[in-house]
Amino acid sequence: MSTIVQKFGGTSVGSTERINRMADRVIQEKNKGHDVVVVVSAMGKTTDTLVKLVSEITTKPSKREMDMLLSTGEQVTISLLAMALQQRGVEAISFTGWQAGIQTDSVLGNAHIQEIDTKRIRNEMDHGKVVVVAGFQGVTEDGDISTLGRGGSDITAAALASTLKADRCDIYTDVDGVYTSDPRFVPKASKINSLSYEDMLNLAVMGAGVLHPRAVKHAKKFGIPLYIKSSFENVGGTLIHGKVKQIESSPVIGVTFEKDINRVEMFECEDVEGSREAIMRELATRHIQADVYTQSCRNILSLLIKEQDLQEILFVLRKEKDRWKYSRIEQRSSLSKVSVIGQNMKSQPEIKIGMCKMLLENAVRVKLIGESSISVTAVIEKSHIQKAVESLHTGFGLDYEDILKATV
Amino acid sequence: MSTIVQKFGGTSVGSTERINRMADRVIQEKNKGHDVVVVVSAMGKTTDTLVKLVSEITTKPSKREMDMLLSTGEQVTISLLAMALQQRGVEAISFTGWQAGIQTDSVLGNAHIQEIDTKRIRNEMDHGKVVVVAGFQGVTEDGDISTLGRGGSDITAAALASTLKADRCDIYTDVDGVYTSDPRFVPKASKINSLSYEDMLNLAVMGAGVLHPRAVKHAKKFGIPLYIKSSFENVGGTLIHGKVKQIESSPVIGVTFEKDINRVEMFECEDVEGSREAIMRELATRHIQADVYTQSCRNILSLLIKEQDLQEILFVLRKEKDRWKYSRIEQRSSLSKVSVIGQNMKSQPEIKIGMCKMLLENAVRVKLIGESSISVTAVIEKSHIQKAVESLHTGFGLDYEDILKATV
Repeated sequence: MSTIVQKFGGTSVGSTERINRMADRVIQEKNKGHDVVVVVSAMGKTTDTLVKLVSEITTKPSKREMDMLLSTGEQVTISLLAMALQQRGVEAISFTGWQAGIQTDSVLGNAHIQEIDTKRIRNEMDHGKVVVVAGFQGVTEDGDISTLGRGGSDITAAALASTLKADRCDIYTDVDGVYTSDPRFVPKASKINSLSYEDMLNLAVMGAGVLHPRAVKHAKKFGIPLYIKSSFENVGGTLIHGKVKQIESSPVIGVTFEKDINRVEMFECEDVEGSREAIMRELATRHIQADVYTQSCRNILSLLIKEQDLQEILFVLRKEKDRWKYSRIEQRSSLSKVSVIGQNMKSQPEIKIGMCKMLLENAVRVKLIGESSISVTAVIEKSHIQKAVESLHTGFGLDYEDILKATV
Repeated sequence: MSTIVQKFGGTSVGSTERINRMADRVIQEKNKGHDVVVVVSAMGKTTDTLVKLVSEITTKPSKREMDMLLSTGEQVTISLLAMALQQRGVEAISFTGWQAGIQTDSVLGNAHIQEIDTKRIRNEMDHGKVVVVAGFQGVTEDGDISTLGRGGSDITAAALASTLKADRCDIYTDVDGVYTSDPRFVPKASKINSLSYEDMLNLAVMGAGVLHPRAVKHAKKFGIPLYIKSSFENVGGTLIHGKVKQIESSPVIGVTFEKDINRVEMFECEDVEGSREAIMRELATRHIQADVYTQSCRNILSLLIKEQDLQEILFVLRKEKDRWKYSRIEQRSSLSKVSVIGQNMKSQPEIKIGMCKMLLENAVRVKLIGESSISVTAVIEKSHIQKAVESLHTGFGLDYEDILKATV
């Protein structure tokens, strides 16, 4: 028997009316003869409501208590969805993260799944039940409730699909697939119908918000196809799998960006390369993603980090000042980051050159440019982000008119 | 070191402002040098909000999913109270029912605590932390979340106090103590300052809503003093303990009532006494409380049950029709029950006679009268309940002017 994992995000389950509609979607899959496991997020505005309560209580909530609080959001949704299925005559049972056997590490607020003991889930599946699992949450070895951070429910769905060796993992979301850039920001962005794990991972790592890199990694591990589609419209989405051929003619598959980036610079650093290593390790322990650049000749170490991680990073850097021996820290906000994504970027210097040229022609000043095997990234003023993204999107032939022309 | 268990009910934690105030109360106790364990209910209107969501999804929610849903209420409160304590510089940690080791039986929606493994709680107490525990909930042997039914948080508090061998269990509630009758209904009701476990148990069993009988039983087991007091006013409450002398002059300690009682009668029952036994066992399994009377001469078996249990009882009776061999069931609602409470009631026939006389004088028709060792109970029309309760309260000398006179 085939197994499908379905994931419904916050807007898909934003009201009881929508939960009822999602129940119908689950039943459609079930009626095709599949075993169905459903992963859900908290209802639309639940998290905001809870966070508002916290703001009335404390300025510095502990991560443990935040996870305790926020994990109630999915617990509400799983019980309501299970009831909606039962009301329609379908046997269903809900599981919280700990009941579903989702074991995480102890990085509360941003935990990683270590393993999933699917005994209880399999047992209920064997009894023909639809199993509804709370996304975004798990339990640590000490028995504390943990949450998985941004994109957490997608990660739960992909990890479960992988552990259960599911035939497919359907991610229902408020966009109808993966685009060459964020369609809310770039009107000419084109939907990508089919994508390899690697390309998706590259897009996700570089900021394409539709899917968390860890979700892609989990699916890739056992080759589970991920299907991203709209919760609301019945149109084709994006299938991410392992059998996609690379189209030779398009080295760039997308343009990603992050509007709010902070730069932190450590000056007169005694051992730039050594400090870089140590900082990377420290960030990994804390599950913080950052770009770390060194300018060895000037003994400067630069970090590009997200707004939400800024305070924690500054805390770490200050705490370890004696160890990393630098004279001062400077911090700069109101920056943005734009990246063009592809494979083997380092062996194609023309991409970097082209990028610089396109930005220059559009009067975008580049403050820093760096490359990795999967991307070339420019740091710019935040006020220039719109024209930067659009000009690169057009310049690398990703606008939908061009894609249309190329495929006709 | 002494241990105090404090319990805060729904109205005491009805808003973040109140949670902040309760945090101050916890700290007051902590500062006296006690170890403090706090048990909390869901915030005021949370349960109503959740129940409304359910009504938009299903007409017949399964008990398992209801418990899954409702248990989120206390989980929100524990995390917020722990944050409020931490914000005030007090180390605190919150535990859900399952984290606190509260093991229940499998009667979902109305579960009984079987045992509490206090290892985690004790460990945190040993580290000087205030431990905040979710009331009203536990976990079954199968790992399902269970709730304890009406009065559940009091039961959690008393059971925890008992298991921890606490020095006192303080129940903060929206009334300021135990009264001779419900003061919201009987303006002349008097507050009782000190009460034995037995008397409190009798009041509670017979419907005094301020404390659940199971809470009293847990406290009685290890002789833990229970102190009922107001969350809002700083006035003396009611202390329930094992060292109260009975006042010889007052055989009746209170008047209790239940406004909405349903009577279900089984007619032409072949074996009235045998059926009574079997039904009592069945109700006990389901944790349903009911008065069961037999009229052997007429082969009628009568049950007095609460509105909320009616559907389940009817279901059971119909399912077991073949076993209990009766011809038909009749059901009657809009009835009320009024009881006078004391000890050794059966050996004081003057109480029953007095009760009948007082009701008669106030034109209250008695439809059924029954007695037990702790009470004499009359079933009456619901429309007569106010005058029935008030006349008995006055008649048995419980009005506060009389109590005042007697003690001067």
